Amino acid sequence: MNARVIPIVPDTGTAYGRPAPTSRSELTQVGAGTPMGELLRRYWHPIGLAGDANATPRKVRVLGEDLILFRDGQGRPGLVYPHCSHRGASLYYGKVEERGIRCCYHGWLFDVQGHCMEQPCEPEGGRARAAARQPWYPVQELYGLVWAYLGPPDKKPVLPRYECLEVLDEGEFLEADDASIGGGGPQVIPCNWLQHYENLVDPFHVVVLHSSFSGTQFVPEMAVMPQVQWDTTEISVRTLSQRKLPDGRNFRRISEAGLPTLRVIPSPRVGRMGRVESLGWVLPIDDHSFRIYVVGRVLEKGELHKMRSRPDGKKLWEELTEAEHQQYPGDYEAMVSQGAVAKHSEEHLASTDKGIVMLRRLLQQQLEAVRNGKDPAGVSFDPDAAPVKFSAGNWME
Amino acid sequence: MNARVIPIVPDTGTAYGRPAPTSRSELTQVGAGTPMGELLRRYWHPIGLAGDANATPRKVRVLGEDLILFRDGQGRPGLVYPHCSHRGASLYYGKVEERGIRCCYHGWLFDVQGHCMEQPCEPEGGRARAAARQPWYPVQELYGLVWAYLGPPDKKPVLPRYECLEVLDEGEFLEADDASIGGGGPQVIPCNWLQHYENLVDPFHVVVLHSSFSGTQFVPEMAVMPQVQWDTTEISVRTLSQRKLPDGRNFRRISEAGLPTLRVIPSPRVGRMGRVESLGWVLPIDDHSFRIYVVGRVLEKGELHKMRSRPDGKKLWEELTEAEHQQYPGDYEAMVSQGAVAKHSEEHLASTDKGIVMLRRLLQQQLEAVRNGKDPAGVSFDPDAAPVKFSAGNWME
Amino acid sequence: MNARVIPIVPDTGTAYGRPAPTSRSELTQVGAGTPMGELLRRYWHPIGLAGDANATPRKVRVLGEDLILFRDGQGRPGLVYPHCSHRGASLYYGKVEERGIRCCYHGWLFDVQGHCMEQPCEPEGGRARAAARQPWYPVQELYGLVWAYLGPPDKKPVLPRYECLEVLDEGEFLEADDASIGGGGPQVIPCNWLQHYENLVDPFHVVVLHSSFSGTQFVPEMAVMPQVQWDTTEISVRTLSQRKLPDGRNFRRISEAGLPTLRVIPSPRVGRMGRVESLGWVLPIDDHSFRIYVVGRVLEKGELHKMRSRPDGKKLWEELTEAEHQQYPGDYEAMVSQGAVAKHSEEHLASTDKGIVMLRRLLQQQLEAVRNGKDPAGVSFDPDAAPVKFSAGNWME
Repeated sequence: MNARVIPIVPDTGTAYGRPAPTSRSELTQVGAGTPMGELLRRYWHPIGLAGDANATPRKVRVLGEDLILFRDGQGRPGLVYPHCSHRGASLYYGKVEERGIRCCYHGWLFDVQGHCMEQPCEPEGGRARAAARQPWYPVQELYGLVWAYLGPPDKKPVLPRYECLEVLDEGEFLEADDASIGGGGPQVIPCNWLQHYENLVDPFHVVVLHSSFSGTQFVPEMAVMPQVQWDTTEISVRTLSQRKLPDGRNFRRISEAGLPTLRVIPSPRVGRMGRVESLGWVLPIDDHSFRIYVVGRVLEKGELHKMRSRPDGKKLWEELTEAEHQQYPGDYEAMVSQGAVAKHSEEHLASTDKGIVMLRRLLQQQLEAVRNGKDPAGVSFDPDAAPVKFSAGNWME
Repeated sequence: MNARVIPIVPDTGTAYGRPAPTSRSELTQVGAGTPMGELLRRYWHPIGLAGDANATPRKVRVLGEDLILFRDGQGRPGLVYPHCSHRGASLYYGKVEERGIRCCYHGWLFDVQGHCMEQPCEPEGGRARAAARQPWYPVQELYGLVWAYLGPPDKKPVLPRYECLEVLDEGEFLEADDASIGGGGPQVIPCNWLQHYENLVDPFHVVVLHSSFSGTQFVPEMAVMPQVQWDTTEISVRTLSQRKLPDGRNFRRISEAGLPTLRVIPSPRVGRMGRVESLGWVLPIDDHSFRIYVVGRVLEKGELHKMRSRPDGKKLWEELTEAEHQQYPGDYEAMVSQGAVAKHSEEHLASTDKGIVMLRRLLQQQLEAVRNGKDPAGVSFDPDAAPVKFSAGNWME
Repeated sequence: MNARVIPIVPDTGTAYGRPAPTSRSELTQVGAGTPMGELLRRYWHPIGLAGDANATPRKVRVLGEDLILFRDGQGRPGLVYPHCSHRGASLYYGKVEERGIRCCYHGWLFDVQGHCMEQPCEPEGGRARAAARQPWYPVQELYGLVWAYLGPPDKKPVLPRYECLEVLDEGEFLEADDASIGGGGPQVIPCNWLQHYENLVDPFHVVVLHSSFSGTQFVPEMAVMPQVQWDTTEISVRTLSQRKLPDGRNFRRISEAGLPTLRVIPSPRVGRMGRVESLGWVLPIDDHSFRIYVVGRVLEKGELHKMRSRPDGKKLWEELTEAEHQQYPGDYEAMVSQGAVAKHSEEHLASTDKGIVMLRRLLQQQLEAVRNGKDPAGVSFDPDAAPVKFSAGNWME
């Protein structure tokens, strides 16, 4: 037998035998009782536009919890556990009245703090009704949004105010938007919130994803490769991107990822120079989806809403075909295709990912603070505290 | 530093830190081998209209089991395990013949008791075919329904007859219906059967849910707050509701929740006075859905079917918009919104829930009887037993 | 008391108390690390038509693994793990270039062997980019199909050639098809691959399912009950079916189930006599679905595609109503209704299932070989090996 002798050089680097991927669940999971879930519960979160709280009970989902938002006849917003404390019918089918919300099943009436005001079928309207408190969460209104605090009652901080939304320039007014501007897609984005939050400290994807890859999704200036420096402030990771423009000008841009979920991102369309004109809050709906609320200083009504992504420069995300999503991917495609939760064990972070490393460290420091019984950064109990100030902005020099 | 001193009064009763809810699974779960599943398997259950058993194999799901219903050429209804005992192809694709049902794959023929009559590709039609018995359940027909017994063969009781369906008044005849009348919604209701069964001993929700809350879903008389007494008979929990009507008359109404799943509910539309005119059986499809079969004495064809819920007084449940479901909730909305299975750990039962407590106790007594090797109540092995008699009815005095 | 004494004869053979079914997972599961998954990974599998590998990244799912197929600008097909080795964005949104595929997020470029060629935002294009190898699998093209090897690199065999596709008769040419011809339904069939593979050694279902039951799905000759013999070759289980036709002729047919997933099935429409004219490969997509690729010698373009099932003799499977599926079941209905994975514990194999027993044994011998560090049958490392030859065919004598 004259079998040919073949030098065998086995393939290297194939996908065979690779370990099962894992995620850093301490950073991603938002449910009650999880480390990040408890950290996030130490802050106020926007859960709806002010107009969402009205006489029709509305389902909201926040940090993995299903809740009902309403506004009683006295104008007070309320946020309650859906299942009536009596026998569990949902207050989604409740009737909103002057004093609170009434369950459809047996008419128990609860105020915005869950006190049971009436049990109409019970003798004397319910002698023991005080024991039937409906679980609730405190809410406040500010900047056109309804904010909720889902954390331990004795740790409830004051609802923060922000300098960039308090000090308005000539002709400006505030506008709130719930279209998940900055998310690159629909209102509810089906992946873990951290994938978007980390995107905020990643100025390089702007040059590829939003410029050379999919065409000019923002403005031509953003396509220039920046010089980038990151630093960590007490309450944010800050990214300074400097670009030498072809015409000789220097374009300086600072953006921030603020604790706990803040987008402090000057307009990537560089519409106006100067300090940041809007703030966004990434609301983790649960471990596998999030949405974004934005408040901004505008000169015209509807200005924010016009900033929704048009990945191909023309159509809204929901108007694109599958082929167009493949051709013009944006933040939505990049983030969601990382998986419902990114597989951190498979990452290869590089020097341009330094901001991500710093942001995770900042989050971990807060996790550790909470674990040690301390307050996380950015939490204040002083009702007279000065508005929070960021340094983000766009400057042409 | 002159910090303002704020007296901190932490919120009370918030939803933070509440324990995870639990359900009383011994009362809710219906699968084989579970306590309630085994209790329910000691009774006959309706699984279809008589017409559902025909020459076209039909999928039915009962107590968590998928089965195939058919009627052979001799008119015998059959109920068999779907997967052919040969190699598992479903008898849903079988052909119904004179002697039974034939599997599409290799033609094995089974009679209504699962005996393998033919194995056409095997020598001599299958010498060992006796070993290939198709799992089956006994069925009977009565009152226009097909009934099945899914329990231990040596405990098979006689199929009960009911006085209110045996003794017909002038002009009356029996009609059967499978539209889940009384369920307040579609044919299949996506929550645990117990949520509906308990609703039967809760006369107070009629005054709120069906009257003051959603408008008059039944008749104005039902809106009057009743005086209620409950008692437990050998085979039911009985509710006596007495109402003083505005015109001075006394409206007396008795309804019953009978073992194991019976609705003994006089028409809430109070169409006719006197003894109850229909019976309903709540069929647990599985742990998370149920349907209702009803048999009633009627004077006109289609009378039962006309009783389907019109939550807003006009449209059928399936014709309502989401906003209308919120505005005119009925039993469906109340029960289904309790969750796929109600979270019993979160209940606050009140004096008006006494019937529910008694019904659960009655069920638990039966669970205990079965556990102790005894027969549960309402089970009879005497083919000459008198029809079961209930005391339910509407009376105006 | 004069109770009637009833002789009780309990029912036998009912479905009550039957044990929970089990499946032979060692034969069915295809994931990495499972016995059958590792066995299947020792062979090449077709994963697409040659045309499926093109400049638009395409999702494929093979043996439970999600992968991306593409073809670079040099014409080389590539098959890579979807999540970019950088930060996990999917290469489904990548751009295919001359040298490979570029991730949309930060522009990392990978060649068909996963080498990272560029990290455009990193200094010097990424000094450490060699460490960021993208997991990949080797692919080859043959017979109009793209083939992949997902197994251990040092065990990679040569891609086999087949005599019946190498030696063409006058006027014949090869055609490839991906419509899952032979599966009796749509392109993706939602059950375990083994259910179809076993169907190949079951000549008796042809007489029932495809003839007497659903009418003539193939040709009248196939309705004649055959005399059947099975034997096991080194790489297949072979079925010899002999039929005495009404006109006195003897119809001899050999079909084979070849390792690991081969359909060596002469046309059941008996279009041509002689040696088998096509081969099919059952591709397990995952544990619960499969598809079939076919290559055949044809005389006309589109000849293979015309062979798609028309269960009622007229319409394509997807054109049938539910009632027609019940009336004219074919392989799809028989196999899929066995369940996502057949419940082997409930089988009653008979003498006509001998081929199935032999096929399982052949598979088990290969599982054992692999477990013992040996190569499974049908695997060759000799690039000069003669094409694989089967003995399948139809002959009229």
